[in-house]
Amino acid sequence: MRYGHFDTAADEYVVERPDVPVSWTNYLGTKNLCTVLSHNAGGYSYYKSSQYGRISRFRQNGVPLDRPGHYVYLRDDADGDYWSVSWQPVGKPLAADGDADPADGTARYTTRHGLGYSTFESRYKGIDAQQTIFIPLDDDVEVWDVRLTNTTDEVRELTVAGYVEFSFHTITIDNQNLQMSLYASGSSYEDGIIEYDFYYEPWTFHWFGSSETPSSYDSLRDNFIGAYRDESNPIAVERGEGTDRSATTQNHCGALQHKITLQPGETKRLVYMLGYGSRDAAGREMQAKYADVATVDAERARLRAYWTAKQDTLRIRTPHEGMNTMINTWTLLQAETCVVWSRFASFVEVGGRAGLGYRDTAQDVMSVIHTNPTKTRQRIVELLRAQTQAGYGLHLFDPKSFDPDAEKLPDVPSPTIVPTPSLDDLIHGLEDTCSDDHLWLVPSVVEYVKETGRLDFLDEVIPFAEGEPATVYEHLTRALDFSTQQVGENGVALGLRADWNDCLNLGAARRRS
Amino acid sequence: MRYGHFDTAADEYVVERPDVPVSWTNYLGTKNLCTVLSHNAGGYSYYKSSQYGRISRFRQNGVPLDRPGHYVYLRDDADGDYWSVSWQPVGKPLAADGDADPADGTARYTTRHGLGYSTFESRYKGIDAQQTIFIPLDDDVEVWDVRLTNTTDEVRELTVAGYVEFSFHTITIDNQNLQMSLYASGSSYEDGIIEYDFYYEPWTFHWFGSSETPSSYDSLRDNFIGAYRDESNPIAVERGEGTDRSATTQNHCGALQHKITLQPGETKRLVYMLGYGSRDAAGREMQAKYADVATVDAERARLRAYWTAKQDTLRIRTPHEGMNTMINTWTLLQAETCVVWSRFASFVEVGGRAGLGYRDTAQDVMSVIHTNPTKTRQRIVELLRAQTQAGYGLHLFDPKSFDPDAEKLPDVPSPTIVPTPSLDDLIHGLEDTCSDDHLWLVPSVVEYVKETGRLDFLDEVIPFAEGEPATVYEHLTRALDFSTQQVGENGVALGLRADWNDCLNLGAARRRS
Repeated sequence: MRYGHFDTAADEYVVERPDVPVSWTNYLGTKNLCTVLSHNAGGYSYYKSSQYGRISRFRQNGVPLDRPGHYVYLRDDADGDYWSVSWQPVGKPLAADGDADPADGTARYTTRHGLGYSTFESRYKGIDAQQTIFIPLDDDVEVWDVRLTNTTDEVRELTVAGYVEFSFHTITIDNQNLQMSLYASGSSYEDGIIEYDFYYEPWTFHWFGSSETPSSYDSLRDNFIGAYRDESNPIAVERGEGTDRSATTQNHCGALQHKITLQPGETKRLVYMLGYGSRDAAGREMQAKYADVATVDAERARLRAYWTAKQDTLRIRTPHEGMNTMINTWTLLQAETCVVWSRFASFVEVGGRAGLGYRDTAQDVMSVIHTNPTKTRQRIVELLRAQTQAGYGLHLFDPKSFDPDAEKLPDVPSPTIVPTPSLDDLIHGLEDTCSDDHLWLVPSVVEYVKETGRLDFLDEVIPFAEGEPATVYEHLTRALDFSTQQVGENGVALGLRADWNDCLNLGAARRRS
Repeated sequence: MRYGHFDTAADEYVVERPDVPVSWTNYLGTKNLCTVLSHNAGGYSYYKSSQYGRISRFRQNGVPLDRPGHYVYLRDDADGDYWSVSWQPVGKPLAADGDADPADGTARYTTRHGLGYSTFESRYKGIDAQQTIFIPLDDDVEVWDVRLTNTTDEVRELTVAGYVEFSFHTITIDNQNLQMSLYASGSSYEDGIIEYDFYYEPWTFHWFGSSETPSSYDSLRDNFIGAYRDESNPIAVERGEGTDRSATTQNHCGALQHKITLQPGETKRLVYMLGYGSRDAAGREMQAKYADVATVDAERARLRAYWTAKQDTLRIRTPHEGMNTMINTWTLLQAETCVVWSRFASFVEVGGRAGLGYRDTAQDVMSVIHTNPTKTRQRIVELLRAQTQAGYGLHLFDPKSFDPDAEKLPDVPSPTIVPTPSLDDLIHGLEDTCSDDHLWLVPSVVEYVKETGRLDFLDEVIPFAEGEPATVYEHLTRALDFSTQQVGENGVALGLRADWNDCLNLGAARRRS
């Protein structure tokens, strides 16, 4: 079965059949805001931390897969029939292969995963629709650039609804413990902007806006979806009208509906925006900025240039086109994603563990030194700060815990009593040490120095996890010395807690007595 | 809107309209196995711990609400039309009020929540169906007693499918971190029994069986449901046939299908069973036992007698029938549930916190001393063991941590490194202490002694959390003394971390200097 192809000229992967049995995901965002997005527009966004900064909700491992998402619904006001620009969640029957102009209630869908954006396209009942989602380089906002074209000879009246479900910010509170979250959340609507907040994190707000004045809105999820319905058939989409109600308590969403008239052959654009920050601090300014489609186009071009510059740092040309495509585009995107966002934000790990894996991070940085020396350096410094005096690394750690400049959040009493771990609790002993984690520091630092020429980095002084300062060179020496000591009776390295990967843990050599 | 009524004679709450906008839940189980079940058969089961012993999966706070559940699907093999015995998940259109014999594709549904059981009833296309779910007093098995009656004049061929989705046992692994769980789970089928296991907890197995040899089965969730479908329209139900495949890796389920022929007027019974333990250790024996409907009836009668005996301990008769019903049945059930299962298993808290809340537990026990003195005593002892030498209680604690007789699980290396907290980590300091938690010990113990006459309980020696032994009387003295010391400048008790409830935490008096 063929589901898609690489469009190498456009640096896109094109999903031609959206009924792929597994999720094909893309990562958007380069700075503070990240979105993990499936080929059906399912997925979630977060601000900085996938554990503590969750913006939109995701029901991991659910059925149907990848719900909810960042959806645009279209409703034909002539007959009330509705669909979504991405195949899911409404899921109209798919047109036969090669049927460019589907009829009889079938539709065509295409998804393009690109560098920093994804584009969803549908053709249904003579309406061509497109939704491109991207995060501009320097603003904490996710932009949905929607284009609608009437390919028929008749005037068409549509209701367009942008929809996203908000999260309770912290993944454990969102997933497991609703005793306070359902009471502590709230939303409001003003100037076309839905603002969402969570009273136990009074420094956190999210907003949802658009480029045109909405005809109606919903900010309560259950008002938009309706009882015993789901994202496939929201009552507010069926009705073509939101309830125009917001409230404190309950589950919240951003849902804005717009009435659009399209003349024969006409194309219109509409922009939805999902942003971090309050309406006053960010929403109004960002909404005004991205309501201008010229700005949207300019920011997309800037984002393209950002990625092209990275690609231009190293381009291979081999006789194998697949090899070129892989190295020049896709492994670059993968590796940059791992280094910028860590491996703890996906559809498999949905933020259950904050921070960085020692081995993962040390390995990942080696592949993007040429395209992202700044982030590489930051990650190496974080790894060195999480190395113990004894030489081993902390297998899983939150870099903020060892960062003297980490942002301190306001102290607000939580209704749930969760004792804060001390620094001692964060520094594990030998029983939780992997035999290889710290060793990856050596090639990582060596590669960084070789690629950047920054020999002086080896003399830089960075504290160990316990606080003792040491040069980077001393850090590497301690790593190697530690492994020299961890040798068994037969002279072979001990397996310790695990070796090379976390599952190589079923036995360990006996320590040399 | 009227959704149901109390049937006081039967000690049941009867839901007449299943489209209630919120979940009406019941709790089944008295010993090791507990099921939290909605009026639409949505919910989950666990063995002993809602955090670590999860058997069936629940997608908390999802849309539609209460998915998945413990479902029985019915398929009319004459035309392929299918429905569920509970209204959800298939959700046929509801018959008009008072329409006893629905037609035109509508159906009637009734749910009865009783003491330790729930019964779901449907009438659709001339088939009367009933599913009663209960957990027998002494076996770790959940029994689904299904009765099907053909009320028409024609022979009817049906396919019946029992379905439950298995969990990855530990709630954080089930909800957040699938990096190992999807690879470490497995299922097999033999002698009509699906066995499910999870290789990183090799002491844990669950099984799903039935009273008749199945015509087909599925033990992989995604084979049963099908891609881009959900519990409303599983592909295996639509087809009337499972794939007969099991495997290691992926998400697992128990799904057994049976072909049933019903003569005009005929009633047949079919029993599904969801159990704890392996096929060899428990499944075969339990399946044989509960395949006999006489045993099912006898165990239901025993369960009824168990609750009647509790009710008979205290029956009030007042002129207000609602008051009688509330005290004699429903507050008894509620209070017993809280004491036996704690408040950390519900649709609001789905096992995100193990153990007991100090204040909750101390309050709850006071209401069931007359019906459950054994469990009351156990809980009081657990509270005393989690009291610190200083007199205050540990706000949230796992009683196993302080129980010298707690079952020790085999030591199996986990692929995810989670340091085990030391006892010191479990004993929080004054900064996490609530001003009232420990005070509730006093009325709890006093009420226990007054109700049972066990004055000697006050002389029993029980260690504080740190290990120091003391009499129960000494424990109470320390609690009171602690509060005497926690007084502010003005002589009023300090609020400490929180007072009376966890949200009274927005300020505290200044300590007397």
